[in-house]
Amino acid sequence: MFKKILIANRGEIALRVIRTCREMGIKTVAVYSTADAESLHVRFADEAVCIGPPPSNMSYLKMSNIIAAAEITNADAIHPGYGFLSENAKFSKICAEHEIKFIGASSEMIEKMGDKATAKATMKEAGVPTVPGSDGLLESYEHAAKLAKEMGYPVMLKATAGGGGKGMRAVWKKEDLKKALESAQQEAAAAFGNDGMYMEKLIEEPRHIEIQIVGDAYGKACHLSERDCSVQRRHQKLTEETPSPFMTDELREKMGKAAVKAAEYIKYEGAGTVEFLVDKHRNFYFMEMNTRIQVEHPITEQVIDYDLIREQILVAAGVPISGRNYTPKLHSIECRINAEDPYNDFRPSPGRITTLHAPGGHGVRLDTHVYSGYVIPPNYDSMIAKLITTAQTRDEAINKMKRALDEFVIEGIKTTIPFHRQLMDHPDYIAGNYTTKFMEDFEMKPEEEE
Amino acid sequence: MFKKILIANRGEIALRVIRTCREMGIKTVAVYSTADAESLHVRFADEAVCIGPPPSNMSYLKMSNIIAAAEITNADAIHPGYGFLSENAKFSKICAEHEIKFIGASSEMIEKMGDKATAKATMKEAGVPTVPGSDGLLESYEHAAKLAKEMGYPVMLKATAGGGGKGMRAVWKKEDLKKALESAQQEAAAAFGNDGMYMEKLIEEPRHIEIQIVGDAYGKACHLSERDCSVQRRHQKLTEETPSPFMTDELREKMGKAAVKAAEYIKYEGAGTVEFLVDKHRNFYFMEMNTRIQVEHPITEQVIDYDLIREQILVAAGVPISGRNYTPKLHSIECRINAEDPYNDFRPSPGRITTLHAPGGHGVRLDTHVYSGYVIPPNYDSMIAKLITTAQTRDEAINKMKRALDEFVIEGIKTTIPFHRQLMDHPDYIAGNYTTKFMEDFEMKPEEEE
Repeated sequence: MFKKILIANRGEIALRVIRTCREMGIKTVAVYSTADAESLHVRFADEAVCIGPPPSNMSYLKMSNIIAAAEITNADAIHPGYGFLSENAKFSKICAEHEIKFIGASSEMIEKMGDKATAKATMKEAGVPTVPGSDGLLESYEHAAKLAKEMGYPVMLKATAGGGGKGMRAVWKKEDLKKALESAQQEAAAAFGNDGMYMEKLIEEPRHIEIQIVGDAYGKACHLSERDCSVQRRHQKLTEETPSPFMTDELREKMGKAAVKAAEYIKYEGAGTVEFLVDKHRNFYFMEMNTRIQVEHPITEQVIDYDLIREQILVAAGVPISGRNYTPKLHSIECRINAEDPYNDFRPSPGRITTLHAPGGHGVRLDTHVYSGYVIPPNYDSMIAKLITTAQTRDEAINKMKRALDEFVIEGIKTTIPFHRQLMDHPDYIAGNYTTKFMEDFEMKPEEEE
Repeated sequence: MFKKILIANRGEIALRVIRTCREMGIKTVAVYSTADAESLHVRFADEAVCIGPPPSNMSYLKMSNIIAAAEITNADAIHPGYGFLSENAKFSKICAEHEIKFIGASSEMIEKMGDKATAKATMKEAGVPTVPGSDGLLESYEHAAKLAKEMGYPVMLKATAGGGGKGMRAVWKKEDLKKALESAQQEAAAAFGNDGMYMEKLIEEPRHIEIQIVGDAYGKACHLSERDCSVQRRHQKLTEETPSPFMTDELREKMGKAAVKAAEYIKYEGAGTVEFLVDKHRNFYFMEMNTRIQVEHPITEQVIDYDLIREQILVAAGVPISGRNYTPKLHSIECRINAEDPYNDFRPSPGRITTLHAPGGHGVRLDTHVYSGYVIPPNYDSMIAKLITTAQTRDEAINKMKRALDEFVIEGIKTTIPFHRQLMDHPDYIAGNYTTKFMEDFEMKPEEEE
């Protein structure tokens, strides 16, 4: 087992990893930028090394400084958390060259899964469903008609130079294809000076549902059920839950099998996530694979009584996994609490937290690196806490979340707590009736008087 | 279901009950003494009524004030928590007379189980093992010898007027009985002017192990496994865990059956606890029954994913229980954090909490009514928080507790956190090798420099 792990990250995930290391009797080294000297991950690590000032390319992304910190502290492994260097093939390789175990994917694996086209091709080979598409530009109307027939309507026409919705057309039946293609081409030519078009299957009422997997060094993988992350704003997840209210036992078995197949095909080692889009007919399509721990991993831990960071460390140390697939016994929801003003277009709200009172009690978990008096630096991601509630049913987990949000006091800055309060009261959320488009129509109600 | 519940208590248990009520959509009424106006249970209840000043007989024990508070707020039920009026037969009766549902035992049940001699006799009738004894004074040496032979050595001779260990003798074999009886009688006569003696079976290396039960209004009961509460100081529990490290599957089944038999024999309704002494041979003897929720109930909740307060409320509202007995799947430990100085004979340390930082993360639960700036009044019990950790194994739960204790910052007052830190490092505790005598030999090591 490792003797000392350096955590190449900041914020709640750095503290999260330190906690598990302490519980496993492994020494820890925190690294921090000058902006993070007062963060809890620095306080609770056994050692801490300053690796430079913000911005991140001067510190948390500066590989030479991090490797140097590992070498001077004699760390025998590095946990990269999420973001920063967690999916950086070069960093994984440098760690290996320095004989420091990178607790994550190998550089080859990261390269393979990091490039979307390569990842999609690999998954196709493995027999995992991917979003059908033209695999290149449309040559003619006839070509488009043939492809559309193959993948089935509805389809989406997209300009290869596109952006901002220009040159895009949803086509629901054969009769409309020709006209749509022509007008999209004209629009693209006018907007981008390039009328090249490609086609993809249109995913109706898409949900973002991901499967947590763990693979070991012996080619064995298992899945730990799903997380529904469809509530997103500009591709940023806001809240996640498991099980997905859209899930069926049959679909879980199919998606779980596909995820395990994907992981075993590429001999994936460590904790990873296979992200899928699921349409309203419960067809699912591979989107991408994340070769790292996810922000939302705690909800999985809560429903299967499993410490995923511990599992990552064990697997990295060569311990085989049990190979057992898990089905959630409970329901768990995570709300990401960001230092943002939900009444003002979620604008970041850094600054000093003058008062913090954490919610607690039955079924409530809080992962945070902040405290009363902490100054949130403006340099980083605005997430300051993850509030997780767990109960026997979804309704109870929602009610517990409302109760915990009401107890959560953070003063001095704006946070997304009011947003989550309103979300938990939203009829469509309560009904489990939401897709990745949910936030497009969501509007905050006016602030209530206290 | 109840529309509004008044919580006739203070501190963490009042907040605990309020939390579950909120989650169930039931309105709450807090009552508070003038010393508790700033407590969180007042803040998080829907309504709050001041019921008088300290001491408790002017407020939390003042039945007329509490009933008046329930009537003016239209509460249809009262939850008494633990302590105060929770096992007061008269209060239970008064509630019934006012048509307010008392969420606890009926006055008859409380009377039956509140008197130790009656409780013991009832349990004997039900066929639950009780500590064998002389059921009255010893008439002669011959009488004593006959009884000792029946109950088996070792036995304990006790002066009926006794106290402070005077007139007590442990007798391990027949040959020693006569001499021991004579010397104990002489000692008792000298000390108390009364040489009346009685005899009890001596419980070797006793452990305090209790079984959580729930009974419904239809005469059905089930047990929710055990809690080991042997670590006590002057009969005050300091830490509890489930499962007991001393437990076997066979013993659990036997004790569980006995507890359910006890509950069903007396048609017990609600959540209750049957406390047993268990000797080193794994014989177990009924000690007493608590007809209320216990301080240490969260560890049971953690290992069986069950909200016991919710269950109490449901049962009180007439919902039948599933009747299923539970076996713990996980291991959970509770440390009672008291405002006491463990380096100074656990002397109470009331006053202002200048800083409070709560531990968090995977497997950590905190139940507390205090916060940064809160002033602990000198009038009440010194318990200010319950820290609970849960993991797949006992070792992991202990390591998690150490980690959580290290993160827990309370400044401005003394607390028992340093005691729990040392306890979690104690070889006998780690080995699960402790009895109710454990604390007699425990000494705090000198305070470490920070």
